[in-house]
Amino acid sequence: MSRPLRVGLAGLGTVGAAVAKLLRDRRGALADRCGRPIEIAAVSARDRRKDRGVALDGVEWVDDAAALADRDIDVAVEAIGGDGGAALALARRALDRGVDVVTANKALIARHGTELARRAEAAGAGLAFEAAVAGGIPVVKALREGLAAARVRRVYGILNGTCNYVLTDMRETGRSFESALAEAQALGYAETDPAFDVDGVDAAHKLAILASLAFGTRVDFDSAHVEGIRGVAPEDIAYAEELGYRIKLLGIAERREDGLAQRVHPCMVPRAAPIAAVEGVLNAVVCDAGEAGSTVYEGPGAGAGPTAAAVAADIVDAARGRRAPAFSVPVAALEAAPAAPLARRRGAWYVRLSVADRPGVIADIAARLRDRSVSIEAFVQRARGAAPVPVVMTTHETGEASMRAALADIAALDAVAAPPRSIRIETL
Amino acid sequence: MSRPLRVGLAGLGTVGAAVAKLLRDRRGALADRCGRPIEIAAVSARDRRKDRGVALDGVEWVDDAAALADRDIDVAVEAIGGDGGAALALARRALDRGVDVVTANKALIARHGTELARRAEAAGAGLAFEAAVAGGIPVVKALREGLAAARVRRVYGILNGTCNYVLTDMRETGRSFESALAEAQALGYAETDPAFDVDGVDAAHKLAILASLAFGTRVDFDSAHVEGIRGVAPEDIAYAEELGYRIKLLGIAERREDGLAQRVHPCMVPRAAPIAAVEGVLNAVVCDAGEAGSTVYEGPGAGAGPTAAAVAADIVDAARGRRAPAFSVPVAALEAAPAAPLARRRGAWYVRLSVADRPGVIADIAARLRDRSVSIEAFVQRARGAAPVPVVMTTHETGEASMRAALADIAALDAVAAPPRSIRIETL
Repeated sequence: MSRPLRVGLAGLGTVGAAVAKLLRDRRGALADRCGRPIEIAAVSARDRRKDRGVALDGVEWVDDAAALADRDIDVAVEAIGGDGGAALALARRALDRGVDVVTANKALIARHGTELARRAEAAGAGLAFEAAVAGGIPVVKALREGLAAARVRRVYGILNGTCNYVLTDMRETGRSFESALAEAQALGYAETDPAFDVDGVDAAHKLAILASLAFGTRVDFDSAHVEGIRGVAPEDIAYAEELGYRIKLLGIAERREDGLAQRVHPCMVPRAAPIAAVEGVLNAVVCDAGEAGSTVYEGPGAGAGPTAAAVAADIVDAARGRRAPAFSVPVAALEAAPAAPLARRRGAWYVRLSVADRPGVIADIAARLRDRSVSIEAFVQRARGAAPVPVVMTTHETGEASMRAALADIAALDAVAAPPRSIRIETL
Repeated sequence: MSRPLRVGLAGLGTVGAAVAKLLRDRRGALADRCGRPIEIAAVSARDRRKDRGVALDGVEWVDDAAALADRDIDVAVEAIGGDGGAALALARRALDRGVDVVTANKALIARHGTELARRAEAAGAGLAFEAAVAGGIPVVKALREGLAAARVRRVYGILNGTCNYVLTDMRETGRSFESALAEAQALGYAETDPAFDVDGVDAAHKLAILASLAFGTRVDFDSAHVEGIRGVAPEDIAYAEELGYRIKLLGIAERREDGLAQRVHPCMVPRAAPIAAVEGVLNAVVCDAGEAGSTVYEGPGAGAGPTAAAVAADIVDAARGRRAPAFSVPVAALEAAPAAPLARRRGAWYVRLSVADRPGVIADIAARLRDRSVSIEAFVQRARGAAPVPVVMTTHETGEASMRAALADIAALDAVAAPPRSIRIETL
């Protein structure tokens, strides 16, 4: 058997420790897969003394993570986190020295992926990030290699397990967003600072990576439209059920004539759509590839076990010398596609208003919609009374800009007691 | 850009012609993915004059497919079909000469996979068959590479689109098996001779390949237990609905302490299980990998477009020199796992009987079950009358051998008018 593959492991948090454990526990099976043993040659982590449940005797400790790149290693595994700082410094230095980099860091790849891929190519090194998108689902490899010959037109999915857990819990229990989030935090499904997840940023990072892999375009996180789930109310979830929909936070990337459209926002999807059945912390990705058909990938989007398995799969590829351009095609061939503005989306809407229950109000609302060429599909006002009552409607397909203008007009009506709540309907 | 990858294409039927067309239509994009152009250097097919909708001017024609291997080619694409004959001859000759082989031929790989992988290794050639399992779903790559570090315990799925179409159609229309099959044939979803599909052989071929990839065991098609769907009656489908199940033809492979269990048979699966929602000609594969979680892969299991895209993805890998052991680990490391007999399965059952409606009959049936330690979960006899009436029951988990013995005992009762129909319940 050939010489061992020498791994430098930076970061021994949940992911890093799980990787170390997996490389040890599955040593024999991995050697069979790789054609050579894998050994951890050096590690870098803040606290040397902390017990992480994995023996690292005899392994060199390096204080400065970036300095791992100068050791005698074949692969640097970046498990530090953060979209800059030590993670970025290590990745740059390793790639520049021709050392392969494996990372689970979606923020790093979404923000610096094109640059890092260019460095990798220049130095003849590999850059791999299977674990960065949808954790344990090998969807990066599916897009980059498995669908290499397919013309992907659209890729979308449930890319954040925290949001999906919160939305599922709200539906099942009738809880408010805040209460479901607290529950998710108690269970370890949400961070103490949940902003990154619930505001859609994490999903947008992953979407930007998927889009680049699928379309051969430069990673363009900054152009993505991003909305989170804080505004989804229990009433919206209940109305969605009643109307035959389910609310999901989707990331959707499309290759259109006017460029690359990337958006993350809550969607109402038909309850019969496969993606509607993906519940709890699960993730799912759908690739629509015209003649090659639609494929769906579903599984655990996070967690130490799935993430470590994805990181280790990239290490196996590195050990075999199996390499692909980081974003499916060489950097020089990556297209700098213009961002297709969300304003050009056409689609249906769900709208919930709180209005005074008096004659003429509905006529006023309908007139505002008509003035913006928005056509109402269904309409319901069940409650009556002195206090403002809820009015819920769905529209036919309409332009994004028209709808937003109509919502602004409606919000300005005297009889409308609160800002309108609206959710895009996606039939997919 | 490097020298073109030269492809020899054997067979210009539906798949072969679609591959030729795809390689031409996506020439530029594929060259980006491969780092070099792909060109068809030689073809072999029965009729040179037939119009296949793709120009092959200037391409060398070879009458004997196996002789393609002697031409100046880098990859031989086998699209001939059949588990021996010209397909096997070409694969052997190409691999022995160090030429990569790409095939969509599940029968060939299920029967000769281990031998071909050995030849490939000996000559330093690649053997790839992404299109052989679940058509356009890149599940071979997922198991071989994406889940390379995961400990897969079980892999199962809907592996035959014809059967899934027929079962879906029977459920939706109430048609008989024969009538649904005729419909599938009229739509081109079933062959004129449907035996291979409806008797479960095709699914078993794919299952044997998946099992080898997942567990690192030798391909062992001959040990698979295989039942098809001819015995599924419209009544069974209706009762399944009533009981909260759906009937699917599943292939299930498990790594157990007593060896490798592989079985293909109709199953009742809970209607809420993700696999129950996979309808029509779609395929789906589920990989249970313990700590690494369960992942689901769904999409088109057949069709010219998806199959050609899968074949072309393997060609892209070949062009990049990206190679993995055909069955995840080198042939020498493939385990010759003993076949775990179906007789050791433990699970629940659905049973439908046709019995004389007279006192004591149910007591007799219950006694036969008790004598074999089979415990009844639910029982229903709705109809009354002079003619035999249907009795349907489900059992608790029981041993396969006990259940079969009990069914034989029950069949022998005077009051039982027809052979009992039974379907295994899989909660998955």
